Amino acid sequence: MAELVSSETDRIREVRVTPVAFRDPPLLNSSGVHEPFALRTIIEIVTEGGVTGLGETYGDDGHLADVRAAATRLTGVDVWDTHEVARRIREVVDGDTSRGRAASSGVMTGSRAAERVLSAYEVACLDAQGHAIGRPVSDLLGGAVRDRVDYSAYLFYKWAGHPGEEPDSWGAALAPDGLVAQARRMVDDYGFTALKLKGGVLPPEEEIATIHALRRAFPEHPLRIDPNAAWSVETSIRVGQELEGVLEYLEDPTAGIGGMAKVAREVSMPLATNMCVVAFDHLGPAVAEDAVQVILSDHHFWGGLVRSHLLAGICETFGMGLSMHSNSHLGISLAAMTHLAAATPNLTYACDTHWPWKLESEEVIAPGLFHFENGSVAVPTGPGLGVELDRDALARLHEQYVSCGIRRRDDTGYMRRFQPDYDPTKPRW
Amino acid sequence: MAELVSSETDRIREVRVTPVAFRDPPLLNSSGVHEPFALRTIIEIVTEGGVTGLGETYGDDGHLADVRAAATRLTGVDVWDTHEVARRIREVVDGDTSRGRAASSGVMTGSRAAERVLSAYEVACLDAQGHAIGRPVSDLLGGAVRDRVDYSAYLFYKWAGHPGEEPDSWGAALAPDGLVAQARRMVDDYGFTALKLKGGVLPPEEEIATIHALRRAFPEHPLRIDPNAAWSVETSIRVGQELEGVLEYLEDPTAGIGGMAKVAREVSMPLATNMCVVAFDHLGPAVAEDAVQVILSDHHFWGGLVRSHLLAGICETFGMGLSMHSNSHLGISLAAMTHLAAATPNLTYACDTHWPWKLESEEVIAPGLFHFENGSVAVPTGPGLGVELDRDALARLHEQYVSCGIRRRDDTGYMRRFQPDYDPTKPRW
Ligand SMILES: [Mg+2]
Ligand SMILES: [Mg+2]
Repeated sequence: MAELVSSETDRIREVRVTPVAFRDPPLLNSSGVHEPFALRTIIEIVTEGGVTGLGETYGDDGHLADVRAAATRLTGVDVWDTHEVARRIREVVDGDTSRGRAASSGVMTGSRAAERVLSAYEVACLDAQGHAIGRPVSDLLGGAVRDRVDYSAYLFYKWAGHPGEEPDSWGAALAPDGLVAQARRMVDDYGFTALKLKGGVLPPEEEIATIHALRRAFPEHPLRIDPNAAWSVETSIRVGQELEGVLEYLEDPTAGIGGMAKVAREVSMPLATNMCVVAFDHLGPAVAEDAVQVILSDHHFWGGLVRSHLLAGICETFGMGLSMHSNSHLGISLAAMTHLAAATPNLTYACDTHWPWKLESEEVIAPGLFHFENGSVAVPTGPGLGVELDRDALARLHEQYVSCGIRRRDDTGYMRRFQPDYDPTKPRW
Repeated sequence: MAELVSSETDRIREVRVTPVAFRDPPLLNSSGVHEPFALRTIIEIVTEGGVTGLGETYGDDGHLADVRAAATRLTGVDVWDTHEVARRIREVVDGDTSRGRAASSGVMTGSRAAERVLSAYEVACLDAQGHAIGRPVSDLLGGAVRDRVDYSAYLFYKWAGHPGEEPDSWGAALAPDGLVAQARRMVDDYGFTALKLKGGVLPPEEEIATIHALRRAFPEHPLRIDPNAAWSVETSIRVGQELEGVLEYLEDPTAGIGGMAKVAREVSMPLATNMCVVAFDHLGPAVAEDAVQVILSDHHFWGGLVRSHLLAGICETFGMGLSMHSNSHLGISLAAMTHLAAATPNLTYACDTHWPWKLESEEVIAPGLFHFENGSVAVPTGPGLGVELDRDALARLHEQYVSCGIRRRDDTGYMRRFQPDYDPTKPRW
């Protein structure tokens, strides 16, 4: 038996908030193209007992301001009292959906600012709890039901390199052959057993051709396509019908619960979303219309790991499948995603991750924890998230944040530098 | 910082299962009358590290057999791995809704045997977790958002005493005056600020008269009536309309989600249930029909405290209120109910409890923990549930179980001993 933990020991003494930037390839999506650097914010909470809990979240300046505003209110809160953490955050962070939102990236539509801030701190609290009692975070979520978590390959149309730079090691991928080659490398290097294509970039017929090429090259791999609502209802239905029997699920073909419901009635595969159902109050309308059959959860905007468990329970209760969404992320997020997925029995789809697109040299956690085999990583077994912050690496990526000049993700603005008439208005097709 | 807890230390070494019986007054309901003894089962899990976790559950023989069957499978399981506890229980306990069900008491309709068994062990695991780390169970549920939990007075039509015995201290209550006197004593002694009448006993006009008498005597107290589905849809609508503006909620006036939905469309007050929505797969149909507006949660059959949190989150997400159901219970259950309610922000109704109907001398926990003031009890602050098992008291109540001869709650059978033509068929009115 452990010695009793004093409730004073686990109170938050200090919060450190560090924005970082890491290199990101020119990946294309329905809003534009990834900029040369992706932003994240690293959170450290330090307890009176000297335990540190880590969190990782978005790095956009509006969100960063919210995270910093919350930081000043958390001193003295017990890391086990996540209800109080949430209450204090909701006092200082607007519940408004627009604040801190990166609309130009097309991915964070409609989630709540307060929930996004809470998410980062909740994970840090759970990490601190786990360190305090010598238990992995998965144990705080009822125990890991699997010791490895499956991820999917996340394929992108992309340029060879950022304009003005040398091509990156992946090279260009703008037609079926390039995507098949990209998938081949991902499968060879990581062992992924499911393939997801980021669509909404080329006319639907070209993307359908890419899916068929992937199917021929990888006859056993479940396939997904996610055009981030670039298509009209009619186009979505047509693509869905053309890809019948080919897709595991069709992700956000069109915008809104109403639009998705219309598509769902006409296609045979499940529809998945991380765009039209991104907060708890979207679930009632989505269930009422049977608009989506798979929710891509994401602890970064659903309010943390325990709230993501609630989402998982709702999916199970109302007969929806559960997968997991990803933005460009570092190792703290991968650890949190992995603990969550491991401790969520009904998370049976391979989860999204941008991990292969990140340079191995650009990371904030100590190396060596994550090795992909057969597309999966082992659930960390150390206390908390099981990751260790590499302070030198953190300082380097923070310097990179300072010098890179990017303060808010803007895939559309970056695209327009090279293609001034670029128009991301959706539906595009 | 605590020393690291070895994962071996928290493995289950031993499980003890002890059925007990305690005196219960002749309380009337729509199925008959409470027998002279109520049955419960006390569960103790002991870890390799010597920590004991307590649980309390139903005592009916079918359920007791399931609890014992599960006990043999739990040795070696980590108390933090409640997913594994659930998996093992589901392997040995039938998912069937009929097994172990006390249909004759009209209260456990349709809940799952495996969930009822899991409930007891899950609470014991959380108690053990809390003891292992020196934290109250409410901290394991995200922290108490209130330091006291409100309960409601639970008023019953009753006989003066069990036939052949002296009248009990409460005396008879078979007409409005008697119920007002009963409520007066409850309010004077416990400070309850909400009053619930168990109905379904007398013709609806008499029960309506009792509600009006209670309203006159207690103009500020929220009032509820629960006839346990003794009424037809038509009668339910008529009673609901007659009590418009008088009731806080109307609980289970009629049977089934379909029947409740019909009533809900015609009455103005919320409908509450612990009968037609008692498992997660009832929630979809209930939400689709807007059949109930308040769910009475009960960790004893919803699968434990964490699953009850999921239910709470579903209620919040789909716009339903949340209250709490009670059967006759002892102090371990009161502690678990109190931790759960304290750590559930949207549990804003006063919870049901049968506590005042129990003799103070009949208890299994060490005395002195719970004091009702203003209808509420303080959330225990000690490790785990914060209760201590009184082994002498446990032995006495177990002896009472052995000698009392009751092995399955049978309110109908007991009633028929005195009224052989008693017919509990519903709807009765
Ligand atoms: Mg998506
Ligand atoms: Mg009831």
